[in-house]
Amino acid sequence: MPVRLDRQSADFDQRFRDFLAAKREVSADVERATRAIVDDVAARGDAALLEATKKFDRLDVDAAGLRIAAAEIDAAVAACDPGTVEALKFARDRIETFHRRQLPKDERFTDAAGVELGWRWSAVDAVGLYVPGGTAAYPSSVLMNAVPAKVAGVPRVVMVVPAPDGKLNPLVLAAAGLGGVSEIYRVGGAQAVAALAYGTATIAPVAKIVGPGNAYVAAAKRLVFGKVGIDMIAGPSEVLVIADDTGNADWIAADLLAQAEHDVSAQSILITDSARLAADVERAVEAQLATLPRAAIARASWNDFGAVIKVAKLDDAVELANAIAAEHLEIMTADAEALSKQVRNAGAIFLGAHTPEAIGDYVGGSNHVLPTARSARFSSGLGVLDFMKRTSILRCGSDQLRALGPAAMTLGQAEGLDAHSRSVGLRLNLS
Amino acid sequence: MPVRLDRQSADFDQRFRDFLAAKREVSADVERATRAIVDDVAARGDAALLEATKKFDRLDVDAAGLRIAAAEIDAAVAACDPGTVEALKFARDRIETFHRRQLPKDERFTDAAGVELGWRWSAVDAVGLYVPGGTAAYPSSVLMNAVPAKVAGVPRVVMVVPAPDGKLNPLVLAAAGLGGVSEIYRVGGAQAVAALAYGTATIAPVAKIVGPGNAYVAAAKRLVFGKVGIDMIAGPSEVLVIADDTGNADWIAADLLAQAEHDVSAQSILITDSARLAADVERAVEAQLATLPRAAIARASWNDFGAVIKVAKLDDAVELANAIAAEHLEIMTADAEALSKQVRNAGAIFLGAHTPEAIGDYVGGSNHVLPTARSARFSSGLGVLDFMKRTSILRCGSDQLRALGPAAMTLGQAEGLDAHSRSVGLRLNLS
Repeated sequence: MPVRLDRQSADFDQRFRDFLAAKREVSADVERATRAIVDDVAARGDAALLEATKKFDRLDVDAAGLRIAAAEIDAAVAACDPGTVEALKFARDRIETFHRRQLPKDERFTDAAGVELGWRWSAVDAVGLYVPGGTAAYPSSVLMNAVPAKVAGVPRVVMVVPAPDGKLNPLVLAAAGLGGVSEIYRVGGAQAVAALAYGTATIAPVAKIVGPGNAYVAAAKRLVFGKVGIDMIAGPSEVLVIADDTGNADWIAADLLAQAEHDVSAQSILITDSARLAADVERAVEAQLATLPRAAIARASWNDFGAVIKVAKLDDAVELANAIAAEHLEIMTADAEALSKQVRNAGAIFLGAHTPEAIGDYVGGSNHVLPTARSARFSSGLGVLDFMKRTSILRCGSDQLRALGPAAMTLGQAEGLDAHSRSVGLRLNLS
Repeated sequence: MPVRLDRQSADFDQRFRDFLAAKREVSADVERATRAIVDDVAARGDAALLEATKKFDRLDVDAAGLRIAAAEIDAAVAACDPGTVEALKFARDRIETFHRRQLPKDERFTDAAGVELGWRWSAVDAVGLYVPGGTAAYPSSVLMNAVPAKVAGVPRVVMVVPAPDGKLNPLVLAAAGLGGVSEIYRVGGAQAVAALAYGTATIAPVAKIVGPGNAYVAAAKRLVFGKVGIDMIAGPSEVLVIADDTGNADWIAADLLAQAEHDVSAQSILITDSARLAADVERAVEAQLATLPRAAIARASWNDFGAVIKVAKLDDAVELANAIAAEHLEIMTADAEALSKQVRNAGAIFLGAHTPEAIGDYVGGSNHVLPTARSARFSSGLGVLDFMKRTSILRCGSDQLRALGPAAMTLGQAEGLDAHSRSVGLRLNLS
């Protein structure tokens, strides 16, 4: 049974705080083991990578066999259901169109003092894309990571994907082909992250690593952060639905379960001002669970982490939504647009009854890699900017240096940095 | 003596690789100690924070005494040299003007299928700004961190600064006042980072922590990353000067030393196609060192990490510059602008002989918090976007859901996520 909270009840604040603070994932203490693997690959390169791959993925391959050849990718595409490949292409095109609008503009201007200022954006030279193996191998995620990198102009996109017992998901390879991935290697885990960060004889190093993974992958990304860039540390997925009495209980229940079926740690929350709707949704969830293939996972998630929160008015729902900072926020109210404008913290907002999150997961065009576990308070979904960096540009002539220099000299001296001050003074014949 | 490399020599590639790979900082193993401090503050709040402050900063203060009152800030400003405060105001205004141009635009469009898409930027609710105490307490850095946060619209900017033996730098407090900091607490180290991340009875938690610090501060930021956002992990500073025979050896030497005086781990590099200039610069460095107050630090940096690299042509300099990915790149060549356009990896570029880095450090207007240790390959200097996050927005009507839905259902089924597929199908009367 999900948590039931009522904004009007006397103990609501404390219960809501506890609800927010509850951990949904046991963070296994994998740091020490991860560090050993990362250090080993950094020191011994391919030899360590191959040993770890044999040990963890039960895959005995030599260095030449790490890379997945173009013919193997073509064969994978040929083996896929054509309708699914068409759907991936449809998704790819929409993701590309959306992300093209995120390409940033360079800036260059001359201010009143004649100083030239600005910045220039450029793509990261090489990016590594981690793709999990096994059940969490989602071709849609390959597109969501690879396409923005290609739109950004990244010349080299390297994918790593574990092949436990030699097995790979053909759709993942197909998505990599469609997404413009340049190289694919059949390695995973902390060893793959280390190979991307430090490079081996077979895998040239990249400058940034993105993509979700298990606890070892997350720990490895945290360890190599600084040596290379990383994207966010992904946590379990979550959806928050805000609905009023106009909401369709069956549709809402389906959306809550679409989140819950991801993982037992996933979280589905409904906030509503309608006690009638709340009860109807709970009933509909039970009814739909009865026929859901992944019912065991979805039920565990819903019972352990699901929540139905009753509020007196929708403004209260907004306040709670900003505290929850959900990865996905669906708003199904009479005026969803107006309500959405009060939301500050959310990864993505899905407006109206006909925008189930699943559309955004696959074919809407916006990115489905979004901040989880309340991190929408400080971070954004994946986008083109994550694959670019900004170089600032400054140019003074002698007149401008004369105008700005004295203040710089004053501050250099105030900070005890005389060489700073001198570097200006020499040019102005002041020192 | 700095390293001398010649691009034409037979062993250049290997020597350059070694040069790039050389570590400039001993990374002390502070992780265990840091974790203990962070966990203690997370668990015991103010009590742990006060104990750590007494232990590490020798400052015995109660919870009420942690916050620095407005009157204390006013008194600090009054005690500062008025000319320096004026210079800080000049810098503040230029930083604000520059960063206003970085404010991102929201996007909202309707595509050919009638799907409404877009995104909205919003400021982070609360930001923590770490400011080091002691010799590295730079009022300019307070401005460089606080002003972009205020431009972004962050309502609450909380500064923490250690007060070893009770001492604070009045200019740092003055800069905080000028920069629009909302609250200041006299705490530092890992304990201050933990207080910002987890909150205590006295310090409400923030959503993101920025600012440089020592090894403990860096380790603490790495630990709380995920719970809150963090900026980059700052390393020792570096400058790369590319100059041709038109370069002024004295000015270049002054700029190299301005970098070197920061820290014994700082790095100053000259790349030139002129053997004459290279020799002149080395001589000028020695001459200027003789009278530099921080000569001991600057000489250690120059001798241990400085480098003079001779190239046959300036195109080679660009190639090396992209590999070095310097925090600061000064270009003093006949056509600096053209050369700069080939540079992909640099935190900031300073064009022409009259743009010493010190101008950018203080009063240029662009941010002086820039990616160090080759991280300009994948990250940008601090800016307004670091204090904002993007929420994506998606809206379908029933027609759009009919157009996009089938592909989403296909992909949901292909990924084994039937509830995803159902959430669309139910709305289309397809399931």
